Amino acid sequence: MITPLRGRDELDVPGLERLVDHILAGGVSGLFILGTSGEAPSLSYRLRRELVERVCRLVNGRVPVMVGITDTAFVESVNLARVAAEQGAAAAVTATPYYFPSGQPELVEHLQHLLADLPLPLLLYNMPSLTKVSFSRETVRWATDQPGVIGVKDSSGDMLYFHDLVEIARARSDWSILVGPEQLLAESVLLGGHGGINGGANFKPRLYVDLYEAAKDHDVDRMLDLNQQVQAIARDIYQVGRHTSAVIKGIKCVLSLMGICDDYMAEPFHRFRATERNRVRAKAEELGLI
Amino acid sequence: MITPLRGRDELDVPGLERLVDHILAGGVSGLFILGTSGEAPSLSYRLRRELVERVCRLVNGRVPVMVGITDTAFVESVNLARVAAEQGAAAAVTATPYYFPSGQPELVEHLQHLLADLPLPLLLYNMPSLTKVSFSRETVRWATDQPGVIGVKDSSGDMLYFHDLVEIARARSDWSILVGPEQLLAESVLLGGHGGINGGANFKPRLYVDLYEAAKDHDVDRMLDLNQQVQAIARDIYQVGRHTSAVIKGIKCVLSLMGICDDYMAEPFHRFRATERNRVRAKAEELGLI
Amino acid sequence: MITPLRGRDELDVPGLERLVDHILAGGVSGLFILGTSGEAPSLSYRLRRELVERVCRLVNGRVPVMVGITDTAFVESVNLARVAAEQGAAAAVTATPYYFPSGQPELVEHLQHLLADLPLPLLLYNMPSLTKVSFSRETVRWATDQPGVIGVKDSSGDMLYFHDLVEIARARSDWSILVGPEQLLAESVLLGGHGGINGGANFKPRLYVDLYEAAKDHDVDRMLDLNQQVQAIARDIYQVGRHTSAVIKGIKCVLSLMGICDDYMAEPFHRFRATERNRVRAKAEELGLI
Amino acid sequence: MITPLRGRDELDVPGLERLVDHILAGGVSGLFILGTSGEAPSLSYRLRRELVERVCRLVNGRVPVMVGITDTAFVESVNLARVAAEQGAAAAVTATPYYFPSGQPELVEHLQHLLADLPLPLLLYNMPSLTKVSFSRETVRWATDQPGVIGVKDSSGDMLYFHDLVEIARARSDWSILVGPEQLLAESVLLGGHGGINGGANFKPRLYVDLYEAAKDHDVDRMLDLNQQVQAIARDIYQVGRHTSAVIKGIKCVLSLMGICDDYMAEPFHRFRATERNRVRAKAEELGLI
Repeated sequence: MITPLRGRDELDVPGLERLVDHILAGGVSGLFILGTSGEAPSLSYRLRRELVERVCRLVNGRVPVMVGITDTAFVESVNLARVAAEQGAAAAVTATPYYFPSGQPELVEHLQHLLADLPLPLLLYNMPSLTKVSFSRETVRWATDQPGVIGVKDSSGDMLYFHDLVEIARARSDWSILVGPEQLLAESVLLGGHGGINGGANFKPRLYVDLYEAAKDHDVDRMLDLNQQVQAIARDIYQVGRHTSAVIKGIKCVLSLMGICDDYMAEPFHRFRATERNRVRAKAEELGLI
Repeated sequence: MITPLRGRDELDVPGLERLVDHILAGGVSGLFILGTSGEAPSLSYRLRRELVERVCRLVNGRVPVMVGITDTAFVESVNLARVAAEQGAAAAVTATPYYFPSGQPELVEHLQHLLADLPLPLLLYNMPSLTKVSFSRETVRWATDQPGVIGVKDSSGDMLYFHDLVEIARARSDWSILVGPEQLLAESVLLGGHGGINGGANFKPRLYVDLYEAAKDHDVDRMLDLNQQVQAIARDIYQVGRHTSAVIKGIKCVLSLMGICDDYMAEPFHRFRATERNRVRAKAEELGLI
Repeated sequence: MITPLRGRDELDVPGLERLVDHILAGGVSGLFILGTSGEAPSLSYRLRRELVERVCRLVNGRVPVMVGITDTAFVESVNLARVAAEQGAAAAVTATPYYFPSGQPELVEHLQHLLADLPLPLLLYNMPSLTKVSFSRETVRWATDQPGVIGVKDSSGDMLYFHDLVEIARARSDWSILVGPEQLLAESVLLGGHGGINGGANFKPRLYVDLYEAAKDHDVDRMLDLNQQVQAIARDIYQVGRHTSAVIKGIKCVLSLMGICDDYMAEPFHRFRATERNRVRAKAEELGLI
Repeated sequence: MITPLRGRDELDVPGLERLVDHILAGGVSGLFILGTSGEAPSLSYRLRRELVERVCRLVNGRVPVMVGITDTAFVESVNLARVAAEQGAAAAVTATPYYFPSGQPELVEHLQHLLADLPLPLLLYNMPSLTKVSFSRETVRWATDQPGVIGVKDSSGDMLYFHDLVEIARARSDWSILVGPEQLLAESVLLGGHGGINGGANFKPRLYVDLYEAAKDHDVDRMLDLNQQVQAIARDIYQVGRHTSAVIKGIKCVLSLMGICDDYMAEPFHRFRATERNRVRAKAEELGLI
């Protein structure tokens, strides 16, 4: 889930309510807040806590809420996990520390420390393009022996890595592999993954739920058909901007055009200006999103 | 300056006092805290504030104190800069936001926002190996037009970039170029830089001050002689560990062997264990550091 | 196809005959020589020509032969394509020049020059991990307008790129997308690709043909079953060595253990020594390859 | 030295004569042909041999000629080295094989094979941005034990690596460290290097010779003055184009404007068109080059 903002360090509260309801109405089986699309690293701790509290209250147990606690400071990660646990979140999600690149032995030790202090089950979040470091296959294999770890969200886009994750996951019947770039949802679910955490589900949740189910049911024709819509969204909406920020800007812009929430973005980014907004509008109309 | 710690989220206060005095006794012309070697991104905000307060009090105006405010969250950067200003720091230092890579136009806008809210002069900190993004030559050129920016600390290790920085700096008589990897101190000062921010100055500050002066005075023989000592330290002390963390671990290990401060490190790292510590000890003895 | 060698600059001729027959007996629909697994860039031009001649004679029209002409020197690429055409090859295959990285406009101009001189249809070979440069989506789109280009072999392993290739290919009914890492054969054929160029088909061609057909026929259960075998081969055989050369060394080692051909490798590589060979033997026995 | 061409696979013979004389008149102490600026990998073998023959004849012993034999095919490297030896060249120069990245043990073995077959002393050429692989410090250290290797040309631009090369070179009194990017000539000679291989010496050889001597003589004021001219050339002439090819295009363009030789470039590149040529002309006039 993106984080609806209406200004610097200020949540768009009515937008947040509409957004949570919109996503849940789409039939999703869980909500992930404070991830990359949630701009978590760009938000103050105060705002992160406020978001956790509000979302948990709004969701009110309808689906599990997973909370990103990724941080470069161990203490802040644990602090946020405690807030999440108090508010009734179901799991904490962490990428590797992302300023200093850790060696894998350092990373394993870091996870050991984290697991000792965490009040929630932990989902690993593999995001090497932004953190510089992958959870290596050996580290994930080690993690399957830790009862406190429940799976991996893989946003590497690397399907060779994914296939090895599937093999590694055989060691744990309760392990989840959730894939990040939504363009890979179909194939990853078909080939052994357990679901997706997909930005497009902010504005069109039903599409991703349907695609997930088609893949899980091996309904290939339906899967291919839905997959084409997912690919078109990625191509048309997420590439309007030039920089890495283009995906989040695109999602927030669509949500703003739909009247769901504001598209304000935290520094270092800025919402799309008129030119890009008009291009998103045209594409979103073509795709039947608005 | 490294950050002396004695445990998780706990400063080594007596060690900090000894360290500040040791460095200042070496004749340095300023102190930079909460940079990369200071493990800033790994420290809680509480501890960062405590460190700023204690260091400013300890230094007590003897030299200017520069405070790293680099953060992925704009609001937290500004908060820390305010603490620094209240405590009498001389400047704030910021690298680019380091989770999301910004495009250069995004970065310029980010700096504009920051300058509008900062109570201190700003030094840019170019550290692309850890932040993924350089301040481009065009962005630095733009920055020379901002009165609130006073220079660049360049830790890229890229001397082609450095030579362009020297050219760009001609636009501002009060601009500083400070170079990061201490192995490049001699040549950068000789070729137009204004100084160094060098990790080795934690344990042997006089050496780096002397090298700086030899280079500034074009005393080539003395410069080459001192430079050999600096290269030897980098080769022998900073490459004992295998990971990126090796430099900081090496510095803290020497300081611990010197009895100056504890070598505890914040997650995701861990101080050297006995094997590496013994190797550092042997090398430090050879080099006459202990 | 790998290139069977028995010494420096010397083909293993009887091994080559056995290998071609073995692969064709597996039901493949074409043969690609002088690609990456064929060690093409490491072979002298004399040997490359000899290989083209021998393979075309051995295949004798049973399946189309595609010949890699990738080179840093334009003139040598064209020379080799002419030999291939004379010997009856069906297509030339080229990656981008791989010493100097070209900008995309430079690459388009390069392809224009090549197409003007080529006596054979051209398949583009996207291999950015070794050539440093991808054929951008725009360049591939441009290529679909060139009658002389017949498709893309994509070895990037990047399924986001692949999905865009599928979209781009809609412009040409006779366009082929062939995918490289065999671990991605199943999903790429299922999702719009036209086949694979897979190193494992050197020793177990039938497996890859069967997997291709299961995917093409949307026979998901069979596809998943065969795919597991393909993943196991990649995991067990291709990761015995530590370096990039491990895949080719693994394939050649299995072929040698099967008695098909020698496993000599051209510089800068060297066949597996006893330790690695024994590990490959154990794994190949487990997998029923030998 | 760049390679003067007047068309595809055709040397500009009168231009070559003028260029060799122009460079030698500038007082250089050697000539390096078939390096990166020489577009060696883009040239046919026939043309490379022709160039070696012509240059050796033209130079006629006035200075040593070093010949780049870098190739992905071992056999072709050795073949070219033999031609070079027959024509009286002084040394062969090789980068790592650049299609397949070698591990360092593979690279050492490759060099062992090469040294066994080479009829000339060998200079290592470190060019990781184009070859993907550095000669590691350990490999260079190993090389200092090989009598057939006489030094390293380092084009990495990495002065930390350079300082370690200087340390390693202490093992051999007859070892040379020659630095590539001309912007680093001054500092590297001052700090322990033995010279430069600098593209700008194609058009203004005296400047680089003078700078070398000022640095060698520790004449800092003169060195700084000349260095400014070198930096200005790099900034103004080598950044007119957008792609990696910009440096070579810039050098050839200046030589063409000087009437020395044609600026034709081998594929995948193309000489500057009118717009860029006019920008180079303007800058070259400003700099007093034409």
